[in-house]
Amino acid sequence: MKLFNRIGIVGLGLIGGSLGMAIRKNAVGSEIVGVTRKKRTLDAALKLGAIDCGSLDFKILSNCDLIILATPVKTIIELLGQIKPYIKRGAVISDVGSTKFEIVKAAQRTLPKGIDFIGSHPLAGSEKRGIDNATAELFNDSLCILTPAKVNIQANTRKLKLFWKKVGAKVKILEPKTHDRIIAATSHLPHLAAFGLIGSLPESYLGYAGSGLRDTTRIASSDPLLWTEIFLTNRQAILKSIKAFQKQICEFSILIRKKDGRRLFTRIRNIKSKRDKLV
Amino acid sequence: MKLFNRIGIVGLGLIGGSLGMAIRKNAVGSEIVGVTRKKRTLDAALKLGAIDCGSLDFKILSNCDLIILATPVKTIIELLGQIKPYIKRGAVISDVGSTKFEIVKAAQRTLPKGIDFIGSHPLAGSEKRGIDNATAELFNDSLCILTPAKVNIQANTRKLKLFWKKVGAKVKILEPKTHDRIIAATSHLPHLAAFGLIGSLPESYLGYAGSGLRDTTRIASSDPLLWTEIFLTNRQAILKSIKAFQKQICEFSILIRKKDGRRLFTRIRNIKSKRDKLV
Repeated sequence: MKLFNRIGIVGLGLIGGSLGMAIRKNAVGSEIVGVTRKKRTLDAALKLGAIDCGSLDFKILSNCDLIILATPVKTIIELLGQIKPYIKRGAVISDVGSTKFEIVKAAQRTLPKGIDFIGSHPLAGSEKRGIDNATAELFNDSLCILTPAKVNIQANTRKLKLFWKKVGAKVKILEPKTHDRIIAATSHLPHLAAFGLIGSLPESYLGYAGSGLRDTTRIASSDPLLWTEIFLTNRQAILKSIKAFQKQICEFSILIRKKDGRRLFTRIRNIKSKRDKLV
Repeated sequence: MKLFNRIGIVGLGLIGGSLGMAIRKNAVGSEIVGVTRKKRTLDAALKLGAIDCGSLDFKILSNCDLIILATPVKTIIELLGQIKPYIKRGAVISDVGSTKFEIVKAAQRTLPKGIDFIGSHPLAGSEKRGIDNATAELFNDSLCILTPAKVNIQANTRKLKLFWKKVGAKVKILEPKTHDRIIAATSHLPHLAAFGLIGSLPESYLGYAGSGLRDTTRIASSDPLLWTEIFLTNRQAILKSIKAFQKQICEFSILIRKKDGRRLFTRIRNIKSKRDKLV
């Protein structure tokens, strides 16, 4: 028996498209239906086998056992109200958004009892986007964080956990607020730093880039709308992370100004040994 | 005929070792001799074919037509005086340091007339280090910046340029000061940002890292001594780059605090389109 019978995916970009392909490849659902705003995307998703059938209309989500909202954060929140009329009682709803507290709060406010919304955050995006970059292997060896709430049915959380494992991800569980605080530091701040590095660089310098600049700023090519919405829906945690980062840069700046080689060395050595633990 | 007859390399780490291997592979010199501080490194370099013979003594550099100093910046400066007694008249001396103004200035002060020091900066390092990571392919498709001075003999600059091309690099020419200003922004600042990102991160968060954090902070695993010396020998330019970066982070922080989605989006979109030019 398949884990879910009918699975709906709203949004068929890199994540949504890849998810459909991974569901099919790993036989996690009997039927995959997709909703998107553009006919061209639907056609591409059908061609790739990411969905069995698709529509520009939410009606196709009727009778789904699992619906995954795979759009930027603000759209996820807006979608909750729009798909509500078509959700089957007992269905599990999830998403792929990079911030969780605002989304979970909106879901609890919007969706009726008997529909379990459980937040998911697959850490599998990249600076690439769109169905054309989708691949069934996107989630292999990646991490997916689930943020179940007390109101959720535990059996549903277990089922959703198994779902992500079957498409290739390792799964960890966090409170929504804890998720947002950790991801602010591990993902949102690095994006901001990458944006800042490119922002502060005269364009004529790009011709002198080595692999260091390339790697540190790869994610500065990420989708602007996606990241605007992430920054705005995780404001407090991001502002806190920025402050801690600014403190670091300021302290480095003082040591360099004072030519304090001994403290600079110790500091970099400690940072290197921390970074070396990230394999 | 080989480009240089006898080539000496001082320092047989990742760069020095790889350079020896690339010189041999591309038949750029007739004989490669190496100097290092540790017997173990010499043995490894001989085994890898990075050198034909090696010594812990600078005397082996006698009769070299080209000597490359492949150590951290401060050591390069100290080495100039130490190797001076053994340099053949008419020899070309170069280095691989990541800052150029201080090194070129020290060379002009230290070395006698008739010995041409021409600064080189191969942008081919990585967070890895040591002879054990050396490879003849390290410089393939990388960039090497030469910083010749007015006192240098043009024929020597042309020969050194050809040397780097033959080991695989593309070559650009810059003034030492210009080099230091550009590299402060494209390499030194990104390293500092990577150190700052890891520095500001609670260690327990490392388990939640995605590819974004991994890529932006790969270079935070770089050699602490090397980077202490780079920061100290390019202070002015780095402090200027830090200031421009701090301004960017501060402006982002204000837009996020003010929830100014429109300006955030425009800013990130402009940065993305700049970064997309870096292929």
